[in-house]
Amino acid sequence: MNGDPRAIGVFDSGVGGLTVLQALRESFPQESFLYLGDTARLPYGSKSPDTIRKYTEQNLQFLSSHNVKAMVIACNSASTQMRDPSFQGKPLYNVIEPGALAAAKASTRGRIGLIGTRATVNSQAYVTEIKKHQPDFQVFSQACPLLVPLAEEGWDADPVTNLIVFRYLQSLMQEQIDTLILGCTHYPLLSGSIQRVTGSSVVLVDSGQAIADQIKSDFQSGRLQPSPEARGQLRIAITDNSGPFESLSRKILGADCPAPELTNL
Amino acid sequence: MNGDPRAIGVFDSGVGGLTVLQALRESFPQESFLYLGDTARLPYGSKSPDTIRKYTEQNLQFLSSHNVKAMVIACNSASTQMRDPSFQGKPLYNVIEPGALAAAKASTRGRIGLIGTRATVNSQAYVTEIKKHQPDFQVFSQACPLLVPLAEEGWDADPVTNLIVFRYLQSLMQEQIDTLILGCTHYPLLSGSIQRVTGSSVVLVDSGQAIADQIKSDFQSGRLQPSPEARGQLRIAITDNSGPFESLSRKILGADCPAPELTNL
Repeated sequence: MNGDPRAIGVFDSGVGGLTVLQALRESFPQESFLYLGDTARLPYGSKSPDTIRKYTEQNLQFLSSHNVKAMVIACNSASTQMRDPSFQGKPLYNVIEPGALAAAKASTRGRIGLIGTRATVNSQAYVTEIKKHQPDFQVFSQACPLLVPLAEEGWDADPVTNLIVFRYLQSLMQEQIDTLILGCTHYPLLSGSIQRVTGSSVVLVDSGQAIADQIKSDFQSGRLQPSPEARGQLRIAITDNSGPFESLSRKILGADCPAPELTNL
Repeated sequence: MNGDPRAIGVFDSGVGGLTVLQALRESFPQESFLYLGDTARLPYGSKSPDTIRKYTEQNLQFLSSHNVKAMVIACNSASTQMRDPSFQGKPLYNVIEPGALAAAKASTRGRIGLIGTRATVNSQAYVTEIKKHQPDFQVFSQACPLLVPLAEEGWDADPVTNLIVFRYLQSLMQEQIDTLILGCTHYPLLSGSIQRVTGSSVVLVDSGQAIADQIKSDFQSGRLQPSPEARGQLRIAITDNSGPFESLSRKILGADCPAPELTNL
């Protein structure tokens, strides 16, 4: 049989993209992954478009040079600046398009909320993409700069987090949204608090499953060859040894996840 | 008359060091200042010692090449990695030594609290420095990763901030501290909430005034020549155009502060 045993490359500015990686590993246990966390330069969400694009290209270059068969930008801020379908001839996935499509499908009344970093909200990337599918849908956005540090502190089932989430979501709830895009890959770590504030009638859309669906469809169409292995490998590289990366990676990926290797880009 | 009209260089990873700059401008209105905010790579507080030192050297190189007469590291995380008294022959000031000295002088019962970023707390730099002055004093430390984003959100007189400050300070208050070092140059922006939690009997020490005292003493000793100008100039450079830099700089420096100039290091 054929197939392509090379890994799929995934990068994020830090630890948030591990939520996407975990969704991909659950969907495709036979695939190998190489994850890059650009921890030396995180966060991207408060940086300018030019700087984010430059860092994104350097990260993709790193992944490409490690012989991956495809690459995933598991960071919303980076995805807003790099929406190309391929990089150096290899399929390239970003979180915006599948997330926008999933929200457009999930929304019953055409009122979609978006929470994300300043960079993601300011880019209007989700709005543009949703309106390609549903021109009449309305999108209400809110930048939430405190949610990433709250997730990294591990305060994910905490009254303080509930209070801050309530503060950020109040204006979106007044707009009677029916769907909420978690437009930052850290936010699934806070989905308990978020769903508590929105109530169960609002559908939460996160990017991990949406990208998995897109890759599955590319395996079926032949754009991408699945791995013939029984069980894939995982390697994790980070650009700085710091902060809560290891404890959060165990929380997201499980206790048996590999230790991160320090690398220079 | 003599004197040295060259500017004093000041840098921080971002906007926090402006609280130090403002204290220096109030103490020395005749001096010119060149401020560098390394906004493309902020925050430093979650990065490793090696990375922080590399960035710090690049920032000092930038200031030195702009013909300053002295340099101030207005960032605690950077100060922990660069404690030299001079750089390229020019006097170099960091926030740790004057802050530690001020706290050692202020403490009546020898129980000092320290709040800062993870990098600053992990470095133990304040503990070492305080024990040089007062070997028997005890220092109780707490990393507070959420306080920088709270200050940058502008939530400085807010119930959420009070709650988070209370959470972080609880263990220090149980140790019956009499003095608290604000070991991050963002924290003076939250001093209202902090003093509300500590009560008025705990002395808050911030670095801006402590560095001003040290520079004043160097003007008197002749290590540094004051400017002969009547009124100094201010220039602000940043490495990325992003986030809340401009609104926060107006809040800290006043409405007439100059617009930041974008620069590459």
